[in-house]
Amino acid sequence: MSNICEILSVGTELLLGDIVNTDTAFIAGRLAALGFPSYRQTVVGDNDCRLADAIREGFSRADILILTGGLGPTCDDITKKAVADYFGVPLVMDEDAKADIENYFREMGRVMTENNLLQALVPEGSHVFPNRWGSAPGIAITKGDKTAVLLPGPPSECEPMFANEVEPWLAERSGCTLFSLNLHLYDIGESRAEAILKPIMEKAVNPSVAPYACEHEVRIRITARGKTEEECRLMCREMAETVLATEVGPYCYTESVTVWESKNAIVLKLIESLRNKKYTIGIAESCTGGMFSTRMADIPGVSDILLGGVVAYDNRIKEQVLGVPGEILEKYGAVSEECAAAMAEGVRKVTGADIAVSITGIAGPDGGTEEKPVGMVCFAVSDENGTATETARFNRKADRSKVRRLSVARAMMMLIRRLNTK
Amino acid sequence: MSNICEILSVGTELLLGDIVNTDTAFIAGRLAALGFPSYRQTVVGDNDCRLADAIREGFSRADILILTGGLGPTCDDITKKAVADYFGVPLVMDEDAKADIENYFREMGRVMTENNLLQALVPEGSHVFPNRWGSAPGIAITKGDKTAVLLPGPPSECEPMFANEVEPWLAERSGCTLFSLNLHLYDIGESRAEAILKPIMEKAVNPSVAPYACEHEVRIRITARGKTEEECRLMCREMAETVLATEVGPYCYTESVTVWESKNAIVLKLIESLRNKKYTIGIAESCTGGMFSTRMADIPGVSDILLGGVVAYDNRIKEQVLGVPGEILEKYGAVSEECAAAMAEGVRKVTGADIAVSITGIAGPDGGTEEKPVGMVCFAVSDENGTATETARFNRKADRSKVRRLSVARAMMMLIRRLNTK
Repeated sequence: MSNICEILSVGTELLLGDIVNTDTAFIAGRLAALGFPSYRQTVVGDNDCRLADAIREGFSRADILILTGGLGPTCDDITKKAVADYFGVPLVMDEDAKADIENYFREMGRVMTENNLLQALVPEGSHVFPNRWGSAPGIAITKGDKTAVLLPGPPSECEPMFANEVEPWLAERSGCTLFSLNLHLYDIGESRAEAILKPIMEKAVNPSVAPYACEHEVRIRITARGKTEEECRLMCREMAETVLATEVGPYCYTESVTVWESKNAIVLKLIESLRNKKYTIGIAESCTGGMFSTRMADIPGVSDILLGGVVAYDNRIKEQVLGVPGEILEKYGAVSEECAAAMAEGVRKVTGADIAVSITGIAGPDGGTEEKPVGMVCFAVSDENGTATETARFNRKADRSKVRRLSVARAMMMLIRRLNTK
Repeated sequence: MSNICEILSVGTELLLGDIVNTDTAFIAGRLAALGFPSYRQTVVGDNDCRLADAIREGFSRADILILTGGLGPTCDDITKKAVADYFGVPLVMDEDAKADIENYFREMGRVMTENNLLQALVPEGSHVFPNRWGSAPGIAITKGDKTAVLLPGPPSECEPMFANEVEPWLAERSGCTLFSLNLHLYDIGESRAEAILKPIMEKAVNPSVAPYACEHEVRIRITARGKTEEECRLMCREMAETVLATEVGPYCYTESVTVWESKNAIVLKLIESLRNKKYTIGIAESCTGGMFSTRMADIPGVSDILLGGVVAYDNRIKEQVLGVPGEILEKYGAVSEECAAAMAEGVRKVTGADIAVSITGIAGPDGGTEEKPVGMVCFAVSDENGTATETARFNRKADRSKVRRLSVARAMMMLIRRLNTK
């Protein structure tokens, strides 16, 4: 059995673009980590014929088909029937799942309508994964060398069910391990990074080396395949040292292993840098409106370093809460290094933090001028050694959200560099 | 020509789950709005053979194949070659695209490496969409009744290029219009909404009626197909009145038309409600860490109503900046309606806002107790008429991020209700 997997998502809301397919990204990441090869992902709508086609086609290429969505209680939830038909078995009531659903509604204090019990119907011969995060149970069914795994569509149920129930079940099938190490680079473009790394990438087979351009950084992903995680880790480490010895080395600000670490690399590095210095932080935000603070509070357990801050969207707040002098606002404007410096110093004072950061800029789409265009953002960092300021002019092609996200990343890097100097 | 579309995304990073396929959701939403039927979405990796298979299979079902990704300058960018091979044409240098790329790098002040110019190679006979948001141009090529549209993968380029360049080009092909109206319901579950609406849904063909469960709400999507948008609008309006006349009516807090409006329905309704009252708002956040303010600042042009606020993550900030009495923190704790009330009153005073809101809770995963479990969140709203408080206990199955997102939605609804009373 070669364990080739495909992910098949079922839902007209995906075809209509009403929701983003985060389930597939999550499952794909876990399958890769488990060492299950996967070469295709498919989405179909709530249509019996097209779903049946997609199941048949999926099994013509893959051994394991992971289906998400269409397990709910409504009449357009058709996945179980389609899978039962493919395997030629009837749907039967699973008494444990039925009891679970009744309990779930009792515990939530919500009224259970009759259609909710349809969620306890499963293809005959299925293994049932209990749903501790919602009501529809997950299902696995194997016939011959083909296995279908059915998961509920809502990400808040699909993700933990996959991680906690399906993974241990799949891991037994897998003989080998895949392990990835990411190097996170700031202030260098993908093309330049690839031009530098080309000689290494062309020779690298196991581990492989590949660059990925993200919004605010470039990641170099080093992936090893081997018998054990430990063996893969060593292979990745050795390759990482080779990569870091090139011209990209100085751009690398941190490394990550898991998808979660990789997504949060910059904020995790900031938190680590603050902890190393035993520094608390206070934040003053104008155009980013609280996004910097939110990103920090995304990470559990930051209360030792994150005091809080002030969202000074309106100039009145800059003056009255942060104590930015009216003359600075008049003479230089709210988007100026002078204002940023006063905001950082003000929030450091107001919060009593060891270090403070401020962001003030023009996120757009309106409000730009010739002199201060949309995408111009000023930053300041202030601690006992003084206050430093910077101005960035993000690509005028960037939209409001992107300017704000790039600003948060830039402010975090400014802090990381200051905290890691000498 | 029936204009059936499929979206084919190319990128090993999608198969590995490194990134979420937001391009497909965006394009799918726009295709639906344009009235182009689409029954399948596919993802393949950077592999010549599997991409060629997917292109052939896609064209066996669809007339228009929209491909995203694999247009970049690196050696694993293979989409153009695969499409050129399918149509049996060579890749040729497009001089306009070449000049564009050179300009782009000059303007950005970044070094252009030789491989960047590979982005100006296009299949012979292509229509080229200039890329005003990045470097790789988009491409459309038609042979007989099959059309391929190639777009760059980064969402910050793919989305505006599709909206601004590809849509007008596609719209000419489309004879009919699809129009959707969403009704946004709060405080009712999907099963209950569907049970109520079942008789309507079963009869409804055009317009169709379908419920979608989102994290914090249920949306009823009414979709009409017709000759003109105006005609569709009227059909949807009539059906909306039928739906609102049922028991779900009282749960509907707003309506939306575009994907952007639908995603931001709750914050847009809040902003509208504040503007109607000519109220400015101040925000005090503990566990949400600035997420409420960020959501408001996501919307362009809110400076007339959004003053700002205080992120009081640490109790010191609650006391020193917001003036929450130490006795309240000692006697009731930071997660209490008493503390929430003092936070809202404090931030109203500090910011000088007409109305203020506060959020303080236990987002988890740690910090919960028997009496105050993870998921318990207290809220307060304060204006000249006084201060109201509420406590929510979100499902203990919810994770940290979800508790925080649900808290923001709940606080917004609390404000919307207060602002729209009498």
